[in-house]
Amino acid sequence: MLARSPHDVGIHAIDTYFPANCVKQSDLERFDNVGTGKYTKGLEQEAMAFVDDQEDIYSLALTAVSNLMEKYDIPWDAIGRLEVGTETVLDKSKAVKTVLMDLFEQKGKNNNIEGVDTINACYGGTNALLNAVNWLESSAWDGRYALVVCGDIAVYSPGNARPTGGVGMVAMLIGRNAPIAFEGSIRASHMEHAYDFYKPNLDSEYPVVDGKLSVTCYYRALDNCYRLFRQRFEQAHGRPFTTIKDADFALYHSPYTKLVRRSFARTIYGDYLANPDSECFTAVPKEVRSLSVEASYTDKTLQTTFDNLTEEDYKTMVEPSLLLPKQLGNSYTGSLYTGLQSLIDNQGSDLAGKRLLMFSYGSGLAATMFSLVVGSDSKTKQVLQDLRAKSQLEQRLQKRNVCTPEQFTAALALREGMHSAPYTPQGKLPVASGAFKLKDVSKDVRRTYSRNE
Amino acid sequence: MLARSPHDVGIHAIDTYFPANCVKQSDLERFDNVGTGKYTKGLEQEAMAFVDDQEDIYSLALTAVSNLMEKYDIPWDAIGRLEVGTETVLDKSKAVKTVLMDLFEQKGKNNNIEGVDTINACYGGTNALLNAVNWLESSAWDGRYALVVCGDIAVYSPGNARPTGGVGMVAMLIGRNAPIAFEGSIRASHMEHAYDFYKPNLDSEYPVVDGKLSVTCYYRALDNCYRLFRQRFEQAHGRPFTTIKDADFALYHSPYTKLVRRSFARTIYGDYLANPDSECFTAVPKEVRSLSVEASYTDKTLQTTFDNLTEEDYKTMVEPSLLLPKQLGNSYTGSLYTGLQSLIDNQGSDLAGKRLLMFSYGSGLAATMFSLVVGSDSKTKQVLQDLRAKSQLEQRLQKRNVCTPEQFTAALALREGMHSAPYTPQGKLPVASGAFKLKDVSKDVRRTYSRNE
Repeated sequence: MLARSPHDVGIHAIDTYFPANCVKQSDLERFDNVGTGKYTKGLEQEAMAFVDDQEDIYSLALTAVSNLMEKYDIPWDAIGRLEVGTETVLDKSKAVKTVLMDLFEQKGKNNNIEGVDTINACYGGTNALLNAVNWLESSAWDGRYALVVCGDIAVYSPGNARPTGGVGMVAMLIGRNAPIAFEGSIRASHMEHAYDFYKPNLDSEYPVVDGKLSVTCYYRALDNCYRLFRQRFEQAHGRPFTTIKDADFALYHSPYTKLVRRSFARTIYGDYLANPDSECFTAVPKEVRSLSVEASYTDKTLQTTFDNLTEEDYKTMVEPSLLLPKQLGNSYTGSLYTGLQSLIDNQGSDLAGKRLLMFSYGSGLAATMFSLVVGSDSKTKQVLQDLRAKSQLEQRLQKRNVCTPEQFTAALALREGMHSAPYTPQGKLPVASGAFKLKDVSKDVRRTYSRNE
Repeated sequence: MLARSPHDVGIHAIDTYFPANCVKQSDLERFDNVGTGKYTKGLEQEAMAFVDDQEDIYSLALTAVSNLMEKYDIPWDAIGRLEVGTETVLDKSKAVKTVLMDLFEQKGKNNNIEGVDTINACYGGTNALLNAVNWLESSAWDGRYALVVCGDIAVYSPGNARPTGGVGMVAMLIGRNAPIAFEGSIRASHMEHAYDFYKPNLDSEYPVVDGKLSVTCYYRALDNCYRLFRQRFEQAHGRPFTTIKDADFALYHSPYTKLVRRSFARTIYGDYLANPDSECFTAVPKEVRSLSVEASYTDKTLQTTFDNLTEEDYKTMVEPSLLLPKQLGNSYTGSLYTGLQSLIDNQGSDLAGKRLLMFSYGSGLAATMFSLVVGSDSKTKQVLQDLRAKSQLEQRLQKRNVCTPEQFTAALALREGMHSAPYTPQGKLPVASGAFKLKDVSKDVRRTYSRNE
């Protein structure tokens, strides 16, 4: 029996919206003339979701919330808190959350909903989730659910980083007595001031990226979070978190899934550092044993050693959460939760009784590791089956419109021009049914939307 | 005995940083050639704080946090959560909070601090505060304090709105067993989708403002929050919140203090609507009794009636919180809390045992009303005296450098050019001692700071 939080606060429902259009990474390899396998094997990415100028962060949030509320038949007045985590900023002052209030006012006469937007790179979704959980455990909780909405339009200027973009928007229903609950207070954060990825060019959607620094920052945050997480676990349970095998699945923020593979290996390198003389680490060569922390980030022998050591566990503990990260690409704040959506879709009721280790990272930087534990009673199994039935990931992915790299490049070029006002979208790519679309932007930059049939 | 929250969660310490330079509103009236009294009586503002290009939102936050930590001798490892509320955005991805992490890492080897930035116009400070309070009541609380940092550089393009700018940055230490505590779960929010004030021009510091709409939005949010607040109060205490007199002080988000005066009158109009036949409202003329909600926002007879009815109470219940709002101008997310700082400075230990009604408003829109209750024991009185002694508002305000409208205008012109990179500040105005200053911005838009002696 896994220990859960005082009120079993956690996730009741989750839905991921992704756009109707994608480009295959193998097609991009040819288009970019970079050599076969550079994106499909080097990054371990399959496809990338993208939008032209008919969708923006407001429309994505409207779509994700509407889809979740409708699929799960949630009354619009049953929500008492709503927070949006994103770094796709259309306005420096007005929260995306306020745009969503139109839905709640019109459908539920509900204006009393706490929470606004939260921002730090890809970490916003996790921050929104932790805030929702705290509210549900506080005296301010008024008996209603919280909604967490997170996701982004990840686009890069032409060049190396462009194939690591993506789009996805996740909405989650958070409440007490949840089938997928937080494991009490067992969570650990690591925060620093770093310029690894940031967006100081405010009138552009493109970030400034130092890719090498970002990987080092990610590993350092992971090391520190995992070490602290194990301490917290031991304090809470009175027994150590011995190795990664004390969890059943490990989920990571995924800029590209090769980094997830490397991060899983890095986590087990943490197990090794905590217990270097353990039997499972006899294969670790001598030179790896004496590496400094700095050297360990890039050492090839270490990498190969732990890639090999962890290959089997990666298949069972990590790959089941990678469908959407591989097929959508990076959805920034949504990324970790597209992993959770994928895992639920993959496992269904087999997820009952399992522990999920979750690692969230946002450049700049902010990172948290926490664990989720899934109920094992028959009601929870039923809910898990229902969640899987409603996610229909394979069917929805198969229905996508596979575009050419030329169409993808043209769509991103269109987006570069969409931040002037007035503006009317020019894009002609199909938009998913049930999705909101931008109708126009007035000269005083007020946006209006319609919903696709 | 006032009812407090389960763990008396609330404010242990507060400090407001404001810049060394200000301009007098009476001088601005002459400079703008608008007629005597337009700003000093029409807006009821005395002076406006401003900064040239030597300070930005990162430097303000570094200064406010350093000042609070040093003044109150708080160990740098005693902070477990830190959240920044602001709408002065320098980066669409990187949180201001991450810049502050340098202080905690260097001085306290403390990287395990939850929380990032939160955004919705002037509401960010309140959202950060409520998030901190929820954390302190949750199972995730780890025994440490939370810090809330909020404030802005409020600047407007030349024209009507320019005199309603201002600058201020508040840092607050939040914990359990606080002298100034939240009154349990008695809080009420009203959120809507509105375009009353927003910042869609991302490469400019200036907002788009519809002033008339914003006042209507503010009143509607106030009406709804106050009505719901009274319901929540009655549910919690089993007796009604009869009139505003059930609080001792009323504090409002202050774009300019004339709006605070009007909002106090509007609050009592709410008392009237709830109980129109009460003796205190016999002076209300017939035509006011039949006004529609829409008409009530602008009706002159209503305004005069309630201005007169509330004049005396305004002096005792509201004016004691207006020193900084009048002397700094609007500090957006910091505004309501510069009011709290002013009230503490004004009342000292006389604040013991008092109830404070707090109304926070951010355009777009998000609003919450909540109450704070002050302990009445001798220890609390001592803390209040200490808080007052450390705030030294009058002395610090008197030391300010009173600039000419020409200097003010030149400083704002300098700011318009500071968002290119590389950049080195050109401003020569004095910077407060102990304040952080921008040294330079590199070509890849990385910022460095130094601290004034």
